[in-house]
Amino acid sequence: VAILTDDRRSPSVIAEALLDHGVDDFRAYVCENVGGSNERIVESDLSDLVGQEFAALNVLLLLRDPTPSPCTKGSGRSEGRAPLLGIPDEAFHQRRPPDGLITKSEVRAVALAKLAMREDSVVWDIGAGSGSIAVEAARLAHRGQVFAVERNPAAVADIRQNVIEFGVPQVEVVEAEAPEGLSALPDPDAVFVGGSGRRLADILTDVCGRLRPGGRVVVSLATVENLNAALQTLRSHGYAAEVTQVSIARSRDVAGLTRLQALNPVFLVTGERMGTRE
Amino acid sequence: VAILTDDRRSPSVIAEALLDHGVDDFRAYVCENVGGSNERIVESDLSDLVGQEFAALNVLLLLRDPTPSPCTKGSGRSEGRAPLLGIPDEAFHQRRPPDGLITKSEVRAVALAKLAMREDSVVWDIGAGSGSIAVEAARLAHRGQVFAVERNPAAVADIRQNVIEFGVPQVEVVEAEAPEGLSALPDPDAVFVGGSGRRLADILTDVCGRLRPGGRVVVSLATVENLNAALQTLRSHGYAAEVTQVSIARSRDVAGLTRLQALNPVFLVTGERMGTRE
Amino acid sequence: VAILTDDRRSPSVIAEALLDHGVDDFRAYVCENVGGSNERIVESDLSDLVGQEFAALNVLLLLRDPTPSPCTKGSGRSEGRAPLLGIPDEAFHQRRPPDGLITKSEVRAVALAKLAMREDSVVWDIGAGSGSIAVEAARLAHRGQVFAVERNPAAVADIRQNVIEFGVPQVEVVEAEAPEGLSALPDPDAVFVGGSGRRLADILTDVCGRLRPGGRVVVSLATVENLNAALQTLRSHGYAAEVTQVSIARSRDVAGLTRLQALNPVFLVTGERMGTRE
Amino acid sequence: VAILTDDRRSPSVIAEALLDHGVDDFRAYVCENVGGSNERIVESDLSDLVGQEFAALNVLLLLRDPTPSPCTKGSGRSEGRAPLLGIPDEAFHQRRPPDGLITKSEVRAVALAKLAMREDSVVWDIGAGSGSIAVEAARLAHRGQVFAVERNPAAVADIRQNVIEFGVPQVEVVEAEAPEGLSALPDPDAVFVGGSGRRLADILTDVCGRLRPGGRVVVSLATVENLNAALQTLRSHGYAAEVTQVSIARSRDVAGLTRLQALNPVFLVTGERMGTRE
Repeated sequence: VAILTDDRRSPSVIAEALLDHGVDDFRAYVCENVGGSNERIVESDLSDLVGQEFAALNVLLLLRDPTPSPCTKGSGRSEGRAPLLGIPDEAFHQRRPPDGLITKSEVRAVALAKLAMREDSVVWDIGAGSGSIAVEAARLAHRGQVFAVERNPAAVADIRQNVIEFGVPQVEVVEAEAPEGLSALPDPDAVFVGGSGRRLADILTDVCGRLRPGGRVVVSLATVENLNAALQTLRSHGYAAEVTQVSIARSRDVAGLTRLQALNPVFLVTGERMGTRE
Repeated sequence: VAILTDDRRSPSVIAEALLDHGVDDFRAYVCENVGGSNERIVESDLSDLVGQEFAALNVLLLLRDPTPSPCTKGSGRSEGRAPLLGIPDEAFHQRRPPDGLITKSEVRAVALAKLAMREDSVVWDIGAGSGSIAVEAARLAHRGQVFAVERNPAAVADIRQNVIEFGVPQVEVVEAEAPEGLSALPDPDAVFVGGSGRRLADILTDVCGRLRPGGRVVVSLATVENLNAALQTLRSHGYAAEVTQVSIARSRDVAGLTRLQALNPVFLVTGERMGTRE
Repeated sequence: VAILTDDRRSPSVIAEALLDHGVDDFRAYVCENVGGSNERIVESDLSDLVGQEFAALNVLLLLRDPTPSPCTKGSGRSEGRAPLLGIPDEAFHQRRPPDGLITKSEVRAVALAKLAMREDSVVWDIGAGSGSIAVEAARLAHRGQVFAVERNPAAVADIRQNVIEFGVPQVEVVEAEAPEGLSALPDPDAVFVGGSGRRLADILTDVCGRLRPGGRVVVSLATVENLNAALQTLRSHGYAAEVTQVSIARSRDVAGLTRLQALNPVFLVTGERMGTRE
Repeated sequence: VAILTDDRRSPSVIAEALLDHGVDDFRAYVCENVGGSNERIVESDLSDLVGQEFAALNVLLLLRDPTPSPCTKGSGRSEGRAPLLGIPDEAFHQRRPPDGLITKSEVRAVALAKLAMREDSVVWDIGAGSGSIAVEAARLAHRGQVFAVERNPAAVADIRQNVIEFGVPQVEVVEAEAPEGLSALPDPDAVFVGGSGRRLADILTDVCGRLRPGGRVVVSLATVENLNAALQTLRSHGYAAEVTQVSIARSRDVAGLTRLQALNPVFLVTGERMGTRE
């Protein structure tokens, strides 16, 4: 939205009105004296605009804020508190038992790094579970599109709730089984496969055909058989595939001493489509 | 910059002129018919503006693009190609031997997740080495400030080059020894300690006193003695500290077979300052 | 025992009588025609002697068998079935929860290797728990002495039962707290410290003073603080200390697929007393 | 050998004569007054016999000592110094580069535990390399037979040298390619496969058919493809197979600090033939 402000409807007054209506997730750019020698652009959160004085005539530009700053505090919504990367596992809505379902925070970070997204990437999260990867991907690729594909209705409900709580409306939830549910989606730059329901080879074959040049697919695997299947499938489609095994141990305080507890190791298989990203 | 465009100096003409001068790292917002019923805002890269038609009078807003989109292709500069997270280790300028110096890509991702930055965080990277953490932190905290503190002149030169190549001007390089060099910096939201030159306790004492409420410090450690010192120091300052051991194995293709090669395990100690982030 | 056999009390008859009384854990050496040109020595298990014919006069030598061969089958006692190394964790009597107490089979093997015992070594197992290390050490050092030191009466009962079941009478159970309980023991060639009840430094100080030249101490540790304390204490007594971190993942069959489950990592600190073993 | 001693050829004199001729690897059992009320058996090393007094008539039994005690010191042969388990990697003769060839000490210990040998086991070490597994297996299964199968002549030479140096004559070196070279060997109780020269499935098929009931095969693997092949082959022959991943980090002293260095992770696949060991 762009608003030409005047004496009465000043940036401060407009900001106050919006905040009164619970709207707080915009970034404001006040462009004073546009084209004049004393031209100035002020970037601000809405709450910081209140009370500020500007020239009489301004262009007030309001852009939806994909990664709200912490000044949204007091809104009671969690997205203001959540970091760009490193949301704690327990902050996500998820089915029980939590341990078995969610890709752990540390593994998520490595997987997101392997996906090598850009801010406008098209991302698929297949077998999205609670949507933890989709949510964090959307915070990184904040001008892109993220599709969370999940066939389990209870998990879909979790994803929807997480999308709201973490303020990532660019995540589109697709309740479908892969690979069938993928046909309607735009070709991806980055694909994460967190669950495959025994259809891993089918899914990867589909993904290999759809990835854009220079795009990446990252498959998270817990079993030896799927690890092997992922490697074979990717290579049969001409992809160079690499494996990264991630073994994490987290400390637990036991009687004042720091004991290390291991998470189960995870294999990440990364494939990259040859060619240069357009 | 905000420009009031007219018939002759249209957005297309202005964009073309800028590109001719090698300026390509701005995002353009063309605000047509501001305040009118047919108001429209178009967001674009400069290269996509060329040839587009708009109304006669527009406000053309140019904002420096902290995370340039890939349409900067052809510029020959690497920032257009680099992902938001997951820059390959070998893409950084660094002193030899590279293995001994750089925090490896996977560990970097986990450390950045532990730092729990927001887009406007103030970040210190102490003992910054080649600046790999500072660069990736700056891509995440793209509206924040990142200070790369490093005492070794050769490393400082690497950081400066990486800052230019990866297009993260919000990284400020501080050639100084910690903790002395920290006194002039604004209080941080997130601190990464990658090297301490045997002054770990001093540095952490300083950091503990400077971190903002809710802020985090993450220390990367390779030795048992420093691991212990980091835990003791953080706790003596009232910080709850946790340890994460990250053990990564990467595949290497050997005669068509996929062999796993271990990276040395790294301990990440994370401390969080009590209180709520403002 | 050495027995001069004759026509009626032949090796076969004697072996049968012993087996009838449940004695089966001796190795028999039948020395025929000692000193004669047709001298012959037959080594055998008791059960294999039954029915065999020998010369009329023999020296039948019976030596207690520290590592009974599998021909003790049918005796219903587990030592005949147990391997020399690699007894399954669940074969040991132990208090619940088993996971928290026993040194896991794989870690035990590495620790025993680090102890570098000889067959006649004097071994201390301090904080012996269920005695799993003592039992396996006794199978290796089968002509030596093994002392299992444990202060918890319930654990002591477990050790006694394991000593009987695994047929290692050379293990002596010492119900005492370390280091006090160590003073009456002969100086050791090899010391394993599996538990220290917060008295690690005291125990290691005592051990460092008692170890024979060339002897080894191996400390199993789960916490960062104790790891550091063990290193500092050993070094302060002039021992070169090395750390081995053992991270094991075991497969579990989940719906026909092979999933890896991590055991918690264990630190083994090994110290060696300078000098040559006599 | 059994010797009837008399006044002049006393145990002491005989022992001294043997030692003068360089024979020191026998255990001596002096059986005094056999059958008398003052019967006594003394077990000793040869060197300890010298100077000891006994009754006039004794049976002196000399048994070859498979695991010589350290009193063989001064003989200049390494077997006297080598531990039963835990021989350092660098003590083995091996081709360069050592790192790539030898199964590391810690992994060897875990593999030997998984083999669950008894003292009289028949063991095959296939792709024996430097023979490190064969040597340590022979020290455990000291009354058994160990076959080291290796096709590479240079490696065979290493094995022969290691067999001599570590005093394990019960290791028989078989210069042949597996599985062809296995046909002449007795059926095994325990099989270690350390190298397979791309014929893993053939070798395991052969081993599965030859293992005695209750016997074990342990395959050491570094690649994902071979891990998968081993699992598939074992299962297709009705074996339950388990995987153990062994990840070891060893400390290295760097400027007085204790840094952890990772060895590459190794997969051990263990299969057990159903049935009870005879």
